[in-house]
Amino acid sequence: MAASSSLTLSQAILSRSIPRHNPTCSSPQQQNPSSSLSSLPIFSLKSAPRRRNYRPAVVRAAAVETLEKTEIELVEKSVNTIRFLAIDAVEKANSGHPGLPMGCAPMGHILYDEVMRYNPKNPYWFNRDRFVLSAGHGCMLQYALLHLAGYDSVLEEDLKQFRQWGSKTPGHPENFETPGVEVTTGPLGQGIANAVGLALAEKHLAARFNKPDSEIVDHYTYCIVGDGCQMEGISNEACSLAGHWGLGKLIAFYDDNHISIDGDTEIAFTESVDTRFEGLGWHIIWVKNGNTGYDEIRAAIKEAKAVTDKPTLIKVTTTIGFGSPNKANSYSVHGAALGASEVDATRKNLGWPYEPFHVPEDVKQHWSRHTSEGASLEAEWNAKFAEYEKKYAEEAAELKSIITGVQPAGWEKALPTYTPEVPADATRNLSQACLNALAPAVPGLIGGSADLASSNMTLLKMFGDFQKGTPEERNVRFGVREHGMGAICNGIALHSPGFVPYCATFFVFTDYMRGAMRISALSEAGVIYVMTHDSIGLGEDGPTHQPIEHLASFRAMPNMLMFRPADGNETAGAYKVAVINRKRPSILALSRQKLPNLPGTSIEGVEKGGYTISDNSTGNKPDVILIGTGSELEIVAKAADELRKEGKAVRAVSFVSWELFEEQSAEYKESVLPAAVTARVSIEAASTFGWAKIVGSAGKAIGIDGFGASAPAGKIYKEYGITVEAVVAAAKELC
Amino acid sequence: MAASSSLTLSQAILSRSIPRHNPTCSSPQQQNPSSSLSSLPIFSLKSAPRRRNYRPAVVRAAAVETLEKTEIELVEKSVNTIRFLAIDAVEKANSGHPGLPMGCAPMGHILYDEVMRYNPKNPYWFNRDRFVLSAGHGCMLQYALLHLAGYDSVLEEDLKQFRQWGSKTPGHPENFETPGVEVTTGPLGQGIANAVGLALAEKHLAARFNKPDSEIVDHYTYCIVGDGCQMEGISNEACSLAGHWGLGKLIAFYDDNHISIDGDTEIAFTESVDTRFEGLGWHIIWVKNGNTGYDEIRAAIKEAKAVTDKPTLIKVTTTIGFGSPNKANSYSVHGAALGASEVDATRKNLGWPYEPFHVPEDVKQHWSRHTSEGASLEAEWNAKFAEYEKKYAEEAAELKSIITGVQPAGWEKALPTYTPEVPADATRNLSQACLNALAPAVPGLIGGSADLASSNMTLLKMFGDFQKGTPEERNVRFGVREHGMGAICNGIALHSPGFVPYCATFFVFTDYMRGAMRISALSEAGVIYVMTHDSIGLGEDGPTHQPIEHLASFRAMPNMLMFRPADGNETAGAYKVAVINRKRPSILALSRQKLPNLPGTSIEGVEKGGYTISDNSTGNKPDVILIGTGSELEIVAKAADELRKEGKAVRAVSFVSWELFEEQSAEYKESVLPAAVTARVSIEAASTFGWAKIVGSAGKAIGIDGFGASAPAGKIYKEYGITVEAVVAAAKELC
Repeated sequence: MAASSSLTLSQAILSRSIPRHNPTCSSPQQQNPSSSLSSLPIFSLKSAPRRRNYRPAVVRAAAVETLEKTEIELVEKSVNTIRFLAIDAVEKANSGHPGLPMGCAPMGHILYDEVMRYNPKNPYWFNRDRFVLSAGHGCMLQYALLHLAGYDSVLEEDLKQFRQWGSKTPGHPENFETPGVEVTTGPLGQGIANAVGLALAEKHLAARFNKPDSEIVDHYTYCIVGDGCQMEGISNEACSLAGHWGLGKLIAFYDDNHISIDGDTEIAFTESVDTRFEGLGWHIIWVKNGNTGYDEIRAAIKEAKAVTDKPTLIKVTTTIGFGSPNKANSYSVHGAALGASEVDATRKNLGWPYEPFHVPEDVKQHWSRHTSEGASLEAEWNAKFAEYEKKYAEEAAELKSIITGVQPAGWEKALPTYTPEVPADATRNLSQACLNALAPAVPGLIGGSADLASSNMTLLKMFGDFQKGTPEERNVRFGVREHGMGAICNGIALHSPGFVPYCATFFVFTDYMRGAMRISALSEAGVIYVMTHDSIGLGEDGPTHQPIEHLASFRAMPNMLMFRPADGNETAGAYKVAVINRKRPSILALSRQKLPNLPGTSIEGVEKGGYTISDNSTGNKPDVILIGTGSELEIVAKAADELRKEGKAVRAVSFVSWELFEEQSAEYKESVLPAAVTARVSIEAASTFGWAKIVGSAGKAIGIDGFGASAPAGKIYKEYGITVEAVVAAAKELC
Repeated sequence: MAASSSLTLSQAILSRSIPRHNPTCSSPQQQNPSSSLSSLPIFSLKSAPRRRNYRPAVVRAAAVETLEKTEIELVEKSVNTIRFLAIDAVEKANSGHPGLPMGCAPMGHILYDEVMRYNPKNPYWFNRDRFVLSAGHGCMLQYALLHLAGYDSVLEEDLKQFRQWGSKTPGHPENFETPGVEVTTGPLGQGIANAVGLALAEKHLAARFNKPDSEIVDHYTYCIVGDGCQMEGISNEACSLAGHWGLGKLIAFYDDNHISIDGDTEIAFTESVDTRFEGLGWHIIWVKNGNTGYDEIRAAIKEAKAVTDKPTLIKVTTTIGFGSPNKANSYSVHGAALGASEVDATRKNLGWPYEPFHVPEDVKQHWSRHTSEGASLEAEWNAKFAEYEKKYAEEAAELKSIITGVQPAGWEKALPTYTPEVPADATRNLSQACLNALAPAVPGLIGGSADLASSNMTLLKMFGDFQKGTPEERNVRFGVREHGMGAICNGIALHSPGFVPYCATFFVFTDYMRGAMRISALSEAGVIYVMTHDSIGLGEDGPTHQPIEHLASFRAMPNMLMFRPADGNETAGAYKVAVINRKRPSILALSRQKLPNLPGTSIEGVEKGGYTISDNSTGNKPDVILIGTGSELEIVAKAADELRKEGKAVRAVSFVSWELFEEQSAEYKESVLPAAVTARVSIEAASTFGWAKIVGSAGKAIGIDGFGASAPAGKIYKEYGITVEAVVAAAKELC
């Protein structure tokens, strides 16, 4: 980070802090965190006899000492302000997690007051440092920090409304509720994976847009992870990639407090996290006293910044619920209010005479500078960008599109369209055509597959691989890490509104990444999930690889757009909707097998979710309506032809996206599915669950309500009755 | 492993093999597997000039040398038989994965021919060693081994039917199709986690039942994992637990071939696996030449067995597609048939003159001894068990119940029942009452929570924790590792039919473990998923923690029993069905909040899935049917009362398990939901997706089709309209 003209007093202190000798983590044998933990007293600020033991003994000039002493007192006051805002808010709500904020207040203070660059009055300023609280249950830490830093989203009233209906301070951090919160966390491990995505985004944009004379992209990603995050597989996946990619500007603090909900981590978590992260290619630093070791924390951050080719894990040993005389260092302080008497005891122990929610004047005064400093930081950057734009118009336009989310005019014209004469092709291949058509038109399109690029057909042919040495490229290689992949894409999507991240695996393996996909939907991250091999049509790989219930399971998920396109036009339509919807993720379920381009399909049809592709009826009164999706729309078209030959008036309907259809006007819906026509047959090579709503009580849903089988695709279709004959027979029964 | 009277020639060779010096893994700096790999020639058995370089230079008696030479030739012939059975089967199917079997044939041969104890004619013999192919795509390796070993499930004809409709040799290993296959793998990482569960089961049973004079439980769990498995988060979760628990009889072979589907693992997987596993507390051995280094492999296994307090990872560096002159060591050999000309070239290269699917007579002869030896092993064990039973009748009865799956008579009488007078309680607490009632009655009940035992209420009070030093105990502490937990429970369930493993987390976090849950359903593993905090009723934790679409998503999953009990009787009923269904997993969605014990609920009602809890109509013609589940059944009961006061004939129905209701007779279904009564209202604090089938086109489903919110539970219920008033109003509209 280049020195800035707005260097603050605290930042000056940071720059003065002395690095520890051999600050890299000691070997596991030498560590005995639990015993070192148990030797930690519960500090009282009034006496604090041993606190200074944790500070390195260094010789300083007297003037500095004096200045520092005052400063240290203020820092401690600020840290206790954070602790008590958390204690008081949880107490008032009688719900929440005070333990983490009490233990992590020191690192939180140093980050938000001394280290991070942000503009509280514009939480969306592009070049801000990002902070992710992966241990999201400790959200009062972040709310307290946002409050002190001057964010309008968290006023005193909001703190008092913690966890209440309609408040800006929900029970876990939610980016869509609270400006200043970058991503949505709480489900453990998601946040650190989001942070990897944010850091990937920065590294990519910096490599792509920075010039020798203008470092226009330059910010850090900070993250606090707890023991719970560390146990989750998703965090190992994401951190393995962070090491592989050498994300040097990712700095994660591991709140090593040895307590999880069930008690001491000894009961289930005795691995050496340090050794594991060494294996993952991270730089590791151990801050042994995270409770009061401010200089240790500062030095660790300085060291982490100096390591530019690896992400850094700063293991900060803390005491959960620090300051609570009877509950600190126990699970009882993790997830419940302290209770009135323990709040009193903690106030006494930490020497805190103030009323609940009180921010002492000098603390308020100290933090108030962030408003003007933040404005300056942004103004400086704006000026820098104006210069950049003059010199590098083309790059500036691309970057601006990513920053603002406004796609270049006419981007959608890049999408291909098809006529029935175009030879049959798998929708996974048609998807690749769309991705490659969009890549030059949509600057923020970036993504890849979980080690199935050649099966998912997701490579952008004009770009190379995003790798440690080539971060300007746009093909991301996620390895076999579906859950991490999804959460990394959430981080990319939420880094800047113009990013259009996509990721891919077999549709059935959404089961591995559903946690991240739900967060996409909840946190309004417009990730595109390219999910191929979408049915028994994949054939021989068998039931472990054949999705059955997955379409239904995502149709039931709020704010998720679930597409199952039938051919080239529908695939292009799905991409059009997906790219436009930056606050709503999309899943494209795509076929392995070839499908014909059908008469009547269109991009416009897809935009309505359900639409008629062919009809020989008049007066909106067909004898029967046949409905299909994806690979089975061909069966619908053929069955319609057969029935028409026999004199029936048949409407063939594509139901490519249930959600979009549901959002159409009643009039439009009636025009496709007239209430009076109850003879309806649906067919889909998947669970029939949910179809009763579409075909009605009198209709028939053809599908598969058991698991698939291992055999050539055509054989399975026939054995499972997913055939033209089945549709024709069902239709004849109804009309 | 104690020396056995049936020690074979191969086992004798194994016992003779010389351990390498310093066989523990060298430090990452010294390792350069990719360069050592590239220096490996493609061996031709006819010349094989460098093969012996890999064998330790040791002095042996001449007689042994002679014997060994013959034996080595036979081993190589056997290994090539395995390779060509895989090559030929994939070629005939024109589908499958030849690369892994070709590379892993040596370790596969040594395991099945020299190391493992099993009885091919009784694949379910209790004390067999277990083998799991976590890299399940390489299933032809296992099919070839089962074939050679004499399992009736894989005859020559079955090999020729690889990946065909109705065959015993599906595209990935499926325990429910192929006796001899222990678990269902393919989705990466599941298998190693299953193996951890199998090894846990062995360690638990051994500690619980072995006596100083009778080691009645004594077997190993072997597993082959690939690079893909290693990248998946689930494997890190499970392996962290394996290290924590010190599963010394778990021996995993890491097929370190540096190739994944997208190419060289360099593109996405550059972490040091060795260092990571060291951090996880495993013993690590590196076999540098897995292609022909038979003695290295033997020595590694011997060393692994000598380490009894840690699981062992044997990193075996192999060449994927070993023997294929043009495709070995490339992704092209991973997942496609070699093609006729490359098959020919490979036959020439490996000196294999035989027709497809041919097993040379001497190889056949060599393997034939496993039939008699296996029978002896089982007979010996049976005799041992007969002795055990005489001395330790009580323990033998318990163990027998676990081995056979026959629960002690009358176990279900342990379940509590309730009357409406019993005070309201949360179903999570009622669940704990059931678990604690069942624990003494059901010997195989074992399980725990993903760090939420005190929230999920899953502790068995009469038992301690299953830990490294106390493996006889039955409370398992999984840490925050949901996906690993589910897959470990699958392993336990499939170890022996009488195991009743349960595991727990918040219902919303099924999103983290859905991959394992689907495998429970597919592989007929009767795991009980205790999923608490099942709706917006959890309150302040907010939308990240509030399930919405989860009920629908599991109701759509084949072979999964989804329960949402309303009170004490229904919770007991759900447990009764769950324990009985050993081939069908169950999910219990349980409330955080207190619920009253309702009149009319019963265990018998639950067994039917849907049933009437109260009714003031006559002649099966109510004015309206109100339907609810779980916490909303109380709302249904109250709304029914209100409507009855107004003179309506109202039926109140609990729909606790849709699957069970679906399986009832048409007559029973008509008795609960008569077709003529279309005035139906359902209420559930969850997505309405799927309810149209129950309430019909004319009915109304009340639910929540967006995300939840952070606020006290009562407030959210009111704001979301999940109320008695809403049901009454909807009912009045319909009748």
